[in-house]
Amino acid sequence: MTTPTQEGTDGSGTLEIVPLGGLGEFGMNMMAVSWGETTIVIDAGVMFAEPELPGVDLIIPDLSYLESRAGQVRALVLTHGHEDHIGAAPYVVPLVDGPVYGTPLTLALVEPKLAGHGIDAADRLVPIRPRDRVVVGDFEIEFLRVTHSIPDCVALAVHTPVGTIVHTGDFKIDQTPLDGEHTDLHRFAELGSAGVLALFADSTNIERPGFTGSEIEVVGAFEEIFTSSTGRLIVAAFSSSLYRMQILVDLAAQFDRKVAFLGRGMMENSQTAMRLGHLRVPDGLLIRDSDVANWPAQDVLCITTGSQGEPLAALSRIAIDDHRHVKLGPEDTVVLSARAIPGNEKAIGRVMNHLSRRGVRLIHEGLKKVHVSGHGSAEELKLVLSLVRPRYFVPIHGEYRQLAQHARVVAQATAGAPAPTEVLLLEDGDILHLDADGARRAGRAPAGRVLIDGTRVGEVGDEVLRDRRHLSADGLLVPVVAISKQTGEVEGVPEIIARGVVIDPDDEGLLAEAARVLSDVVAAASVEERTDQGLIAERIRVEVRRYFRKRTGRRPLVLPVIMEI
Amino acid sequence: MTTPTQEGTDGSGTLEIVPLGGLGEFGMNMMAVSWGETTIVIDAGVMFAEPELPGVDLIIPDLSYLESRAGQVRALVLTHGHEDHIGAAPYVVPLVDGPVYGTPLTLALVEPKLAGHGIDAADRLVPIRPRDRVVVGDFEIEFLRVTHSIPDCVALAVHTPVGTIVHTGDFKIDQTPLDGEHTDLHRFAELGSAGVLALFADSTNIERPGFTGSEIEVVGAFEEIFTSSTGRLIVAAFSSSLYRMQILVDLAAQFDRKVAFLGRGMMENSQTAMRLGHLRVPDGLLIRDSDVANWPAQDVLCITTGSQGEPLAALSRIAIDDHRHVKLGPEDTVVLSARAIPGNEKAIGRVMNHLSRRGVRLIHEGLKKVHVSGHGSAEELKLVLSLVRPRYFVPIHGEYRQLAQHARVVAQATAGAPAPTEVLLLEDGDILHLDADGARRAGRAPAGRVLIDGTRVGEVGDEVLRDRRHLSADGLLVPVVAISKQTGEVEGVPEIIARGVVIDPDDEGLLAEAARVLSDVVAAASVEERTDQGLIAERIRVEVRRYFRKRTGRRPLVLPVIMEI
Repeated sequence: MTTPTQEGTDGSGTLEIVPLGGLGEFGMNMMAVSWGETTIVIDAGVMFAEPELPGVDLIIPDLSYLESRAGQVRALVLTHGHEDHIGAAPYVVPLVDGPVYGTPLTLALVEPKLAGHGIDAADRLVPIRPRDRVVVGDFEIEFLRVTHSIPDCVALAVHTPVGTIVHTGDFKIDQTPLDGEHTDLHRFAELGSAGVLALFADSTNIERPGFTGSEIEVVGAFEEIFTSSTGRLIVAAFSSSLYRMQILVDLAAQFDRKVAFLGRGMMENSQTAMRLGHLRVPDGLLIRDSDVANWPAQDVLCITTGSQGEPLAALSRIAIDDHRHVKLGPEDTVVLSARAIPGNEKAIGRVMNHLSRRGVRLIHEGLKKVHVSGHGSAEELKLVLSLVRPRYFVPIHGEYRQLAQHARVVAQATAGAPAPTEVLLLEDGDILHLDADGARRAGRAPAGRVLIDGTRVGEVGDEVLRDRRHLSADGLLVPVVAISKQTGEVEGVPEIIARGVVIDPDDEGLLAEAARVLSDVVAAASVEERTDQGLIAERIRVEVRRYFRKRTGRRPLVLPVIMEI
Repeated sequence: MTTPTQEGTDGSGTLEIVPLGGLGEFGMNMMAVSWGETTIVIDAGVMFAEPELPGVDLIIPDLSYLESRAGQVRALVLTHGHEDHIGAAPYVVPLVDGPVYGTPLTLALVEPKLAGHGIDAADRLVPIRPRDRVVVGDFEIEFLRVTHSIPDCVALAVHTPVGTIVHTGDFKIDQTPLDGEHTDLHRFAELGSAGVLALFADSTNIERPGFTGSEIEVVGAFEEIFTSSTGRLIVAAFSSSLYRMQILVDLAAQFDRKVAFLGRGMMENSQTAMRLGHLRVPDGLLIRDSDVANWPAQDVLCITTGSQGEPLAALSRIAIDDHRHVKLGPEDTVVLSARAIPGNEKAIGRVMNHLSRRGVRLIHEGLKKVHVSGHGSAEELKLVLSLVRPRYFVPIHGEYRQLAQHARVVAQATAGAPAPTEVLLLEDGDILHLDADGARRAGRAPAGRVLIDGTRVGEVGDEVLRDRRHLSADGLLVPVVAISKQTGEVEGVPEIIARGVVIDPDDEGLLAEAARVLSDVVAAASVEERTDQGLIAERIRVEVRRYFRKRTGRRPLVLPVIMEI
């Protein structure tokens, strides 16, 4: 099996593929593909820590494998601009001697991340378009348009000396894409006809039967909501959901509402999208968040961050009546226009309870079709499989059970074919070798999760890359606060337990002072905030950590314990 | 407005209703209804701590309000046998001077709980049937059949001197109930015609549109599963889902599979249900768990606990290949036949990942219709509302957002009626007064959550009722273990941080020995168990607590910290 565009001359070599993230968890997607002295990296994603997982902000893949190939990593190739595909770029780009390929939107979203880490890579960011091809060593990389929940996404066909591999990125088959950019089924079919060695395909929604449906399917529900809303309308969504934003902006224009973006991610991404033409906003429609209060309630739409219940996001502040510019009342409507990422249900539920206390009308995916997934369901995955009809198949992007289910579905779907596809169920760190003799697992590369003890929004350039070993060396702090569930009052004196935190003998008062910081944080919080374990714990974590970092330069793991009395 | 069966003579009094649990959370449902010197308690439920909420096992409502009425609490009235309605009975019954009313199944499920706490209440357990009426002081309590996910459920009509109140319990309107026992819509209608003062209705599924559907809707999916299963078939469900068990037993008989119940709750409840005729099992069909391995895989159905990812349940042990009698392989099928209780998604996901590693075919609600809720959806709730057409409406059984949504739905549904229903949005501890002048909130009673630091399955009679104040007085232990994510090896020496744990000066070695216990626990665990934070944390919690209790008689709060390295 060869490809029509084979560049390499040494057909006797071995292609080595190592998934470094995303095979065994959702997020931190990354894969290394090597031939001889050339390695390319596909995607560089983060995984978000859960709102209630204290102690860390971000998680990225272990980069040891790339470090071991120093000088040979020739390109980073990005499929699209979601955090779980580009968020680790600031940590990966320094290990790459070569360009960063991506579509204009993807690169526009990566660029400020790199700048925030003091990396000036402007001349290495190489924009590509669908059907473009670029050559890196013995690889020729071809980009194929796919549809997803963010615009300007691509899949990859990597033509190698031993054959073509196809990497779907994240995708669904949206038959009515808002921007008219259809999934390039024609090219997938051509590649399949020419012969594909291996397909690596998204497994996120393999457990959903049928087809996922088009992004425009939310329009009907939102039309109803706009029609029936008599007060303010607040819609929370992922800040990368630019199609969703366009739908909302268009409806706002139609229903005579001004639009305000709330939360840093919304503000930044909407600006970027407008600059690149992915978000078209009529003149005069936008207002600033600080102007929301100056407009009649029924004339305003706010599009906000916080759909995952993140304790410090705009929606969470609004929910406890603690947002500077937006106060809600019984006439207002709040829409959660996003799925709950598993693990976030409790945090989202708490935000919904707080919003209900404001008396608002609350709408979510369970009540109306205000969200459509960006990932293809089982039938879409089978369709791409049957177009590409690869010799080998590797499920990617999922926890183990999704990968296993995808493997099962593919084995069943191809069982009757003249040349059945062989399924390889890999996990992060598994080394896959492909050569003239076929495909096989060939040992393990270092892989795992590296925790980023980042700073919060607004404090750029102060992130620290480290692993649990370092966390453990910096020690552990357990702030303990007892709060009356009934009154929200603090009972007793808040304390901080320290373990392994090296304290300068001259600084005996450190822990006592930290305990005072803790008391102040709790005292400054509202009763509603204090009686919400998730909110108050996050507030304590951030403030205690900030205090310790400032005073000692150390970053202990901070695990608040809130005792309800 | 009066009722046809009014017993009281003093029409000038005030009916006092205090929800003590279930209005602001799912679980621990309990409500006190008082007239003069007589108080009755409706339900006495627990709330389960989440699998990953360390430190407590059960949560029950604060009982201070009932304690303040000592000698006047004349009856406990149970609507059905679910834990969130009867689980707190051992703590409530001692406060009741009078009978415990419930259907035969409900009482059969309560009785062993009471016995386990050394309460011999056999002569106070008074079985009732639908349409029965009992008199307690000035109250006449009438029982109405409703359908739900467990058999033998009732709603209540409490006829009081100021009018009739209706309490739905938990219900849906199953039009094809497996046991032929239909919801008594006729009597709801009669009560509505005669005039109902207040309706208290289940809000659990208010966010779901339409009708919930009948329990028998799962039969089709299970028929497919039985037909296509070539190995063992393992179905995890709530141990109270007796209808589900009957469906599975019938299919097992039809498809020539023996049936084994796994897990204590399954074994006990199936025995009780068979004794009372709620579960009919053909002779020779049942086998013991210890016999599972002696039958060919394709001849066995196991019905097991663990559908919520509980770390110590049978399914969790099977998933990590650590069950004494049941080992799974690629030919086997596992079905999760239950919804995920919010907050349990991560734990369930982990069990599913472990099961996938065993290579089994894994089926859950997202893939096939293997579960139907027992709670009515919006249209069912509206139907009962329009039959009962109460003067006042109080949503019960839900977090604040469900109560608020139910209030909104009812206000809309009755807005056009000649005499619109007035909606009262109460929370736990709100005192509601109803008299000739109408209904109003009249202050607050003590309410909240009391934590039960129980013992595990099998250690009866050693549960401790206490609140966080006591927990805090017994101190806090934080076992810290660093485990390599890659290898599952323990790194460094596990330690235990103690705060506020009073240690006898003669017992200096206590903490050091506890740390050894901790090391032993971790060493004895399998790699798969060690690299699953939820499983190893729960194992550590249980063992460290047991050690401290045995050595010191104290029960500190134990919060394990697992550092992945």
